[in-house]
Amino acid sequence: MDNKGITKQKQSDIIEWYEQVCLKSELADFGEVKGTIVIRPRGFYIWQEIQNHFNTIIQNEFNVDNCSFPMLIPERFFKKEAEHAQGFAPELAWIQTNAGEDAKDKVIIRPTSETIIVDSFAKWLRNYRQLPIKVNQWCNVLRWEVKQTKLFLRGREFLWQEGHCIYETNEECQKDVEGILNAYVRICKDVLALPVITGEKTPAERFPGAVKSYTIEGLMPDGKALQMGTSHNLGQGFMKGFNVEYMGRDEKTHNPYYNSWGFATRLIGALVMTHSDNKGLVLPPKVAKEKVVIIPIKKKGQSSDLQKYVEKIADSLQEFRPIIDDRDEYSMGWKLNEWELKGVPAIIIVGGFDMEKNVVTLKMRDEEQKKELAVDSLTKSIQTELDLLHTRLYNRAKTFLDSHIVHANTIEEFTEEIAKGKLVSVYFNCDVDVEKEVEETYGVGTRCIIDENAPPQKCLFSQNPTKKIVLFGKSY
Amino acid sequence: MDNKGITKQKQSDIIEWYEQVCLKSELADFGEVKGTIVIRPRGFYIWQEIQNHFNTIIQNEFNVDNCSFPMLIPERFFKKEAEHAQGFAPELAWIQTNAGEDAKDKVIIRPTSETIIVDSFAKWLRNYRQLPIKVNQWCNVLRWEVKQTKLFLRGREFLWQEGHCIYETNEECQKDVEGILNAYVRICKDVLALPVITGEKTPAERFPGAVKSYTIEGLMPDGKALQMGTSHNLGQGFMKGFNVEYMGRDEKTHNPYYNSWGFATRLIGALVMTHSDNKGLVLPPKVAKEKVVIIPIKKKGQSSDLQKYVEKIADSLQEFRPIIDDRDEYSMGWKLNEWELKGVPAIIIVGGFDMEKNVVTLKMRDEEQKKELAVDSLTKSIQTELDLLHTRLYNRAKTFLDSHIVHANTIEEFTEEIAKGKLVSVYFNCDVDVEKEVEETYGVGTRCIIDENAPPQKCLFSQNPTKKIVLFGKSY
Repeated sequence: MDNKGITKQKQSDIIEWYEQVCLKSELADFGEVKGTIVIRPRGFYIWQEIQNHFNTIIQNEFNVDNCSFPMLIPERFFKKEAEHAQGFAPELAWIQTNAGEDAKDKVIIRPTSETIIVDSFAKWLRNYRQLPIKVNQWCNVLRWEVKQTKLFLRGREFLWQEGHCIYETNEECQKDVEGILNAYVRICKDVLALPVITGEKTPAERFPGAVKSYTIEGLMPDGKALQMGTSHNLGQGFMKGFNVEYMGRDEKTHNPYYNSWGFATRLIGALVMTHSDNKGLVLPPKVAKEKVVIIPIKKKGQSSDLQKYVEKIADSLQEFRPIIDDRDEYSMGWKLNEWELKGVPAIIIVGGFDMEKNVVTLKMRDEEQKKELAVDSLTKSIQTELDLLHTRLYNRAKTFLDSHIVHANTIEEFTEEIAKGKLVSVYFNCDVDVEKEVEETYGVGTRCIIDENAPPQKCLFSQNPTKKIVLFGKSY
Repeated sequence: MDNKGITKQKQSDIIEWYEQVCLKSELADFGEVKGTIVIRPRGFYIWQEIQNHFNTIIQNEFNVDNCSFPMLIPERFFKKEAEHAQGFAPELAWIQTNAGEDAKDKVIIRPTSETIIVDSFAKWLRNYRQLPIKVNQWCNVLRWEVKQTKLFLRGREFLWQEGHCIYETNEECQKDVEGILNAYVRICKDVLALPVITGEKTPAERFPGAVKSYTIEGLMPDGKALQMGTSHNLGQGFMKGFNVEYMGRDEKTHNPYYNSWGFATRLIGALVMTHSDNKGLVLPPKVAKEKVVIIPIKKKGQSSDLQKYVEKIADSLQEFRPIIDDRDEYSMGWKLNEWELKGVPAIIIVGGFDMEKNVVTLKMRDEEQKKELAVDSLTKSIQTELDLLHTRLYNRAKTFLDSHIVHANTIEEFTEEIAKGKLVSVYFNCDVDVEKEVEETYGVGTRCIIDENAPPQKCLFSQNPTKKIVLFGKSY
């Protein structure tokens, strides 16, 4: 495929633009089976960096161990927690083999692993000394979506992490539910330069089987919200359904308290949508495989000296995994376009004049103007420039997010602002039936509760008094 | 579950012994669906260490990039390479959903990913400048085995890595096929302390669709061989079946040359079988999550001083992730048994006398006698002891392997040595039909060709002259 650049505008045709950026920057391809994705090396590098950062956090701060549970789950497991079974039923996929032996007990492919992990907890747990037990797995899951699928953002098969922990007390359980949500916020901010909104989900939007669900929500450039990670306090429902019990300090039998939490490769989609532009991908430096490309401007007669100069520069920048692009068959303009399409954070241009002055010319991915940097302090300067790029990306996205949250006191304001692509906060008492009605009437759902304990006012929809302020918005 | 220790003997009942070691040392559990496995944190740590070491090798030495391909493959893909289709047909599993939309084109779950990856190569590849393309993925695969499944050694779902690369020339392709096989040997030796035999598979045992298949084979304590990793030169068959083509340096269209290579969590099974003993798991230090356990011998009156002494020691050993086992409810003997069952490489015992002398008492997992170590140089001494343990484990296994390979010149010698649980080398011309006959007659198959170019002699089975010496042996 020739790199012909992005032919759609982010402002006018975001869906087509997004797809082109993912494909042409070589992050991903469509899989042959509908709703599947090929994550190419440049895209998978982003996922690996997210994994590295998150593994460090859960191991060091939460004492969570990685492990691996089967992808295949007996269907009868799913029926043990009624809400969970009902929630996932429409999206399940079964397996079928030539052996025929499993006809009696259907085997499903995991859409999520609560049931099979809790079954193991029941086998392992005997007494309170074993608690807490905290595990996480990085794996693929399958949900037979009927909605339109999109690269990274919605797929039938996707990669994610799912953490599952059990505790003696609800306090410890709830503490980690909130602690993990906070870790998600940090990963988004520190690694992906993405600002998010956090809050509890309304009862209508809870994870099937959860007592409390929390979410991090991003806002995409078209005004649609995107759920980017969730953390659930599952209480004791699964524990009772699967007989997870232990002998307590009081020598009586108890059920532990359970939480689960996850984020998926959807994060990569959020990153692409938020930062990229009409020239192509824009990557926060921490997840860019190649952070620097060096392009020499070759002139006749000086090529050998210039080559040495460029190699010396590349050597000094090893930590940024520099690529030297000295291909003769392409022009400077073509090369610049290609690397900008691919989202390389920093492009260094080196010509004869630069060499004479012992400098290089730097072009950052998100800026138009170029600047001169001294070779002597180049490593430090490049690190500073990359840090500044990260900060600029975050700040731009944060400004956009903040300017798109408004409060509505009347139904008129509410519908007006929703139509403008805003996230709209209103007083809402979180009644499940009312929420369903609102969704049907205005075509918009809740994102999360942003204040649980505001000065009481009337619920915008039911007129009953409430302390809850809830964010509504269109979503992916 | 109480840790009651291993109740079977490795020497007399290896299958039961092996299962108990895996379960009681908490490496793994049976999954609820037959042939599936739960890899618990202590087992998954081994896999993560293997991943870290192998990722470093393939990135630094082979320029291979990690990526992710879908688990779901259209069945029609499988039919494009006839031998491949035939080889995997009996073990395939399909998916079934409520949507029904995919009834026309059945969707299978990957038993291996050649077809779907090669389909992507066909989409990506345009000209010779893009070659070589080298990708790898760590993922789960599904093969609906009819044989008896065993934890780690044979499962219907297992985790593995699969590398897939395409090249301009067969020379480059073959060079990496052999280079990766050598990397497998190094992972086994340096990380898992496992010696292996390497060689080419006979035509009858080639991977379906391969031109040449190479293998690393281990020998288990019961005299059965275990295939632990394979590397295949797939030539141009898949390339032609899937129209993978590029414009060459000569401006003509060519098919590239293709290889694939993989090892699975089976390596963990080989490690357990080879090194462990009747007390339980024995782990090479590099894959032990906790490399050191410190057990204080508490006496009344000195507990506070002793505790400080133990904490100081633990601090100095941070790199070995030490555990302090100061549980009051268990005896010293009980604790020793538990940690030895779990395979912790080094146990440090610290009592009042040790404290007075500024020493500790060390018990290595594979040795009976204890030794005294000075606290002042403890970090260095422990590292040395761990390195020595690794070397002892490797050397023991190597001695066993070397003493179990014999050459047979007559059918009588051949059958006698096979019956003794030996790997037997013979002159064999590698005829596919003859190999089938030998397998049916003697119940034993080929492991690999160990000499391609020996001084010619008559094939033991066909009497035709041959230069090939081939290893036969029973296998898992």
